[in-house]
Amino acid sequence: MRGAKNYKREELLDRAIELFRRQGYSATSTAELVEELGVNRKSMYAEFGSKQGLFEAALERYSERNLTRVLAPIEDPKADAQSIRRAFTGYASASEGAFSGLGCLMANTAVERAALDPGAAKFVDAYLDRLKAGFTRALANAREAGEVKEGTNLDEIAALLSMSVVGVSALIRAKAPADDVRAAARAISNLLDLVKPATEPA
Amino acid sequence: MRGAKNYKREELLDRAIELFRRQGYSATSTAELVEELGVNRKSMYAEFGSKQGLFEAALERYSERNLTRVLAPIEDPKADAQSIRRAFTGYASASEGAFSGLGCLMANTAVERAALDPGAAKFVDAYLDRLKAGFTRALANAREAGEVKEGTNLDEIAALLSMSVVGVSALIRAKAPADDVRAAARAISNLLDLVKPATEPA
Repeated sequence: MRGAKNYKREELLDRAIELFRRQGYSATSTAELVEELGVNRKSMYAEFGSKQGLFEAALERYSERNLTRVLAPIEDPKADAQSIRRAFTGYASASEGAFSGLGCLMANTAVERAALDPGAAKFVDAYLDRLKAGFTRALANAREAGEVKEGTNLDEIAALLSMSVVGVSALIRAKAPADDVRAAARAISNLLDLVKPATEPA
Repeated sequence: MRGAKNYKREELLDRAIELFRRQGYSATSTAELVEELGVNRKSMYAEFGSKQGLFEAALERYSERNLTRVLAPIEDPKADAQSIRRAFTGYASASEGAFSGLGCLMANTAVERAALDPGAAKFVDAYLDRLKAGFTRALANAREAGEVKEGTNLDEIAALLSMSVVGVSALIRAKAPADDVRAAARAISNLLDLVKPATEPA
């Protein structure tokens, strides 16, 4: 029974995630949530307390599940420069197809809610920390593997990459031309080539 | 009389810009707008038609006035690599002080409204076009001045820079640590160094 209840809760949260991601927090009314979740208002309040409570539960599940999947390439303890390239190619590909116009719920929330809502800001801060930690380790691995030349400031590049994940998501959310999003991802890939040590003449 | 009327309209729009920038579109109620603008609801509707009409008028003024000022360094026909560096240093500095938590109204709108509201999307598209055009020309000037080595793909770098303006704004809006925002801006500055031609040995 416990399992069934959890399954039901997770299913509701996934539907809430979809709605908040598509419409944002403020533009989503309680009436829409009730309809989309297919529960009555009383059950929704009993389970989540409020629209805010539901939003935070959705952000928690999104962090644990969606972000963990999306950030897997850069959170892999063995991630390196090639993992970063692959991650950005993947993110940029969301500029076409079903994800166009959606963006990442956490990046959307960074812009829509973090400055206004400490409950949401907690999740956004943790998201930015994860990006920074992932890129920092991946770049350290790249240096270890001899893929980064001396004097390269890895903290600065990690900051640029973290900011770029949020920026790429914002462009996808804004339905910017897919060519431009892919070009930005290629520029990041090229940046990683630019910081490679010069190949020694044979 | 015409001048006085325009002055009044512009003053109202500046207050609306401030409110939309701080709270976003959806979280700002008509009641708050009426109070903040210091006009009654009837006058507001007579002048702007609706909350949506007021929002679009605010975006138009923001484009013409705020963006024109903020983008001046990169829209200068003589802009070059140094102008790009200076622009990003300036944008990153908004991560501290009165602009922390605000972000650019147009970048905020790209995330909050563009996918949902064709009226807002029109302004966001024009904003992204301005960024791209500005950076493309500034980079062409830099190449002309011998600051870019052969084989560098300027379209890709222009796409990265445009995306970065939106990304930096998103981080500022999310109150990300100022050190991280400045580090990202320095990484962009360093990228422009990395694409410089190697100095010829004397």
